[in-house]
Amino acid sequence: MIPTMSASHDLEEGTALTPKFDANGLVTAVVSDVASGEVLMVAHMNAEALAKTMASGEAWYFSRSRAKLWKKGETSGHVQRVVEIRIDCDQDAVWLRVEQHGPGACHTGRRSCFYRTVPLGQTGAVKLEFADDKTFDPNKVYGKT
Amino acid sequence: MIPTMSASHDLEEGTALTPKFDANGLVTAVVSDVASGEVLMVAHMNAEALAKTMASGEAWYFSRSRAKLWKKGETSGHVQRVVEIRIDCDQDAVWLRVEQHGPGACHTGRRSCFYRTVPLGQTGAVKLEFADDKTFDPNKVYGKT
Repeated sequence: MIPTMSASHDLEEGTALTPKFDANGLVTAVVSDVASGEVLMVAHMNAEALAKTMASGEAWYFSRSRAKLWKKGETSGHVQRVVEIRIDCDQDAVWLRVEQHGPGACHTGRRSCFYRTVPLGQTGAVKLEFADDKTFDPNKVYGKT
Repeated sequence: MIPTMSASHDLEEGTALTPKFDANGLVTAVVSDVASGEVLMVAHMNAEALAKTMASGEAWYFSRSRAKLWKKGETSGHVQRVVEIRIDCDQDAVWLRVEQHGPGACHTGRRSCFYRTVPLGQTGAVKLEFADDKTFDPNKVYGKT
């Protein structure tokens, strides 16, 4: 079908930024450490979060659970300086390569949210394994009492 | 509220694999090249795709547009050997570190789906920039005529 192919071609091979926001107005944001390549977190962006990130060079997201815009590091001070933003073929996901300030990105007190491995090739009950230690005390950083 | 804190604690600090599938039964899968750290693609997995990936060590996903399970490389031969699976703090995203077989992961003919950069610090109309060249002819690989 020519119209569809053409629209798909523009989306994939064009230079216009036309994010394909989902029914909730969000795209997926994958965030990796620019130096190590480690994936630090996966979050979501609405149009405003993407625009603020592009304008400021610091990462902003949209929290689905709190239904609000937030700047990474606004509570912890652990801001993310964005070195590069990439967008994928169908423009429903962005990849942020960042310099992570402070000891970590994860609210549990680790550098990355992906601190557990899922074993491969096992049958039956599966046990996650911890790959990363905590790098900070989340209660202190996020002010829980 | 103690029950909530406890549930959250188990999810984040426990060793049980309890993926938090969304309303469509999916978790987000971020896929990176184990050698370079490059993010190759973002896809989705239902419980069956995750189980098949864990069991076989090759990546399976669930296509939202086609509403079906698919094995990466089933058409192109560009399979992904999974070296490690990690799961994030709230268990709604997995990170696959893979060996990408063949010249690329993207159906447009590139190594990565994230072949365009989004400029930072600009005002007004924004123009995407191509960062990666094609590594294969998608028409030949995917059999379009």
